[in-house]
Amino acid sequence: MPELRKDPIIGRWIIISTERGMRPADFIVTPPRTKGGFCPFCPGNEASTPDEITAYRNNDSKPNTKGWHVRVVPNKFPALKVECQLDRTGDGVYDKMQGVGAHEVIIESPDHNETLGTISTKQFEEVLWAYRDRIIDLKKDERLRYILIFKNHGEAAGASLEHPHSQLIALPIIPKRVGEELSGSLEYYKFKERCIFCDIIRQEKNQQERIVTENKDFIAITPYAPKAPFEVWILPKVHESNFENSQKHIYENLSTIFTDIIKRMNQVLNNPPYNYILHSAPVRNGEMLNHFHWHFEIMPTLTKTAGFEWGSGFYINPTPPEEAATFLRNVKI
Amino acid sequence: MPELRKDPIIGRWIIISTERGMRPADFIVTPPRTKGGFCPFCPGNEASTPDEITAYRNNDSKPNTKGWHVRVVPNKFPALKVECQLDRTGDGVYDKMQGVGAHEVIIESPDHNETLGTISTKQFEEVLWAYRDRIIDLKKDERLRYILIFKNHGEAAGASLEHPHSQLIALPIIPKRVGEELSGSLEYYKFKERCIFCDIIRQEKNQQERIVTENKDFIAITPYAPKAPFEVWILPKVHESNFENSQKHIYENLSTIFTDIIKRMNQVLNNPPYNYILHSAPVRNGEMLNHFHWHFEIMPTLTKTAGFEWGSGFYINPTPPEEAATFLRNVKI
Repeated sequence: MPELRKDPIIGRWIIISTERGMRPADFIVTPPRTKGGFCPFCPGNEASTPDEITAYRNNDSKPNTKGWHVRVVPNKFPALKVECQLDRTGDGVYDKMQGVGAHEVIIESPDHNETLGTISTKQFEEVLWAYRDRIIDLKKDERLRYILIFKNHGEAAGASLEHPHSQLIALPIIPKRVGEELSGSLEYYKFKERCIFCDIIRQEKNQQERIVTENKDFIAITPYAPKAPFEVWILPKVHESNFENSQKHIYENLSTIFTDIIKRMNQVLNNPPYNYILHSAPVRNGEMLNHFHWHFEIMPTLTKTAGFEWGSGFYINPTPPEEAATFLRNVKI
Repeated sequence: MPELRKDPIIGRWIIISTERGMRPADFIVTPPRTKGGFCPFCPGNEASTPDEITAYRNNDSKPNTKGWHVRVVPNKFPALKVECQLDRTGDGVYDKMQGVGAHEVIIESPDHNETLGTISTKQFEEVLWAYRDRIIDLKKDERLRYILIFKNHGEAAGASLEHPHSQLIALPIIPKRVGEELSGSLEYYKFKERCIFCDIIRQEKNQQERIVTENKDFIAITPYAPKAPFEVWILPKVHESNFENSQKHIYENLSTIFTDIIKRMNQVLNNPPYNYILHSAPVRNGEMLNHFHWHFEIMPTLTKTAGFEWGSGFYINPTPPEEAATFLRNVKI
């Protein structure tokens, strides 16, 4: 059974994912990637994944067969499981709980070779709707406090399968970094009675130094103090704390700006590996938070100094965000 | 001039290292490594580095010539510079200051092919003395608040040169992760009036599950909630907050246990790339902190999911630390 453990000094929870149970030899021998080989996410191979949770499919097609556009399945090697009990137990200075939660895969397209650089805005909008559908469904489980949605694209960014997919992890705790954003933005709100993210958007529009692109509903910027080169944030212009509570045109315009940003990164950085992650408010709020503002963070994987930076929380970024924004803004796509 | 910038939401400082000024093409074309080629850290090539800051050398040898055992030089592409002014300035919601500080390289051996798996304990003890000498010297600069000492070993861990070396970065701020350890351990101390690290050592000695090895002065454990597989911490058994304030036998026994751990990792994980980092109390304390306990953290680079984990602060570790400790404890070295 997976286990959540808390660092007794800094209070960060981590998962010990016993399902994966990696022993030394697993790290030494790099697992072969299925390049050109069998792909469990391709149409026709539906039986190789656990039964689908939901899928957007042609009216005449049956679950777990071909005919889908977007398909959501449980992760075959889940880091967390819904069947666990939410027991917190102590062991001297240490704290743990069973790894209750969910770990799902959102298969973004039937086409194995699709990427977010080639996908249609209509198709990626369907992916965004699938994110929302899963959040709304998982919210009903009162044990869960946070739903993380993220994508690893490319081997260097941690993807183990080529077929375009993102992942969802539902957690009984709030991840540390998101917790810091929640408390930091609350401090600011207490002091100013304004949302810090709304203030950032206003300042970026005035300064015109770090804007990559914008449309009616969204602005994409390189953040002022980015931990990595060419990091980009996509923020909705109108205040909202929860991704899932938006109106329909928001998902349409998010798809447009998101695929636009990936195309720009692909041009400027020659199809880099990347990660993105949705930062939305915790699911047990009840209503909109005035101080928090949902957004996506996109990080191309360009540098390799993770270990030192993990150990210190200190980042050295060799590319000023103003320069990165200029490159991304001016490229022809 | 390098610039320190503060994230307005979570308060983390980062460096924009304009000296390195990396543009898109620098990320696309991987710089060639000097494998077998010219090495600026090898004896005889002293003129290819900036003038040495200190060196342990034969009595008859002159600075910046051959004849040294350990040599400390300024980083040729420093992330920070001592000549900067410590001016904090605001720009709307944003905060920055000039990148005042120091960035140095500790060349650990004249032998290009030496590693911490082959180095003599006497030689590595010299490296530890060099760390201490630099800390004591840099402490005099009242603008500096923290001195980070770390090593990137192997290309995947971020090392750009093969010759064995570690790095020192002196900062006008406290790195986020260290700040979290300081405040977390202070909370615990306020509640219990005991050092959390001392309590961890006591519990680990009782439980005998996560100890890799120990000697008279040190214990090496796999931490209870490690962010990465095979992470190891080395802690002094007697409470002390600052690395530089230890007695002579401490450095001797640290060298022994440290090289022992690296040999074990090399055996179990087939010479992995790794990072280590010294966590010591800030330099402007005045005296020993009762709540903080200096230690080294060693992290082999085995997994690739950095991006998602950077974005969430949430870690999935596929190897329980009890298993990792068993492997490392039982290996023949």
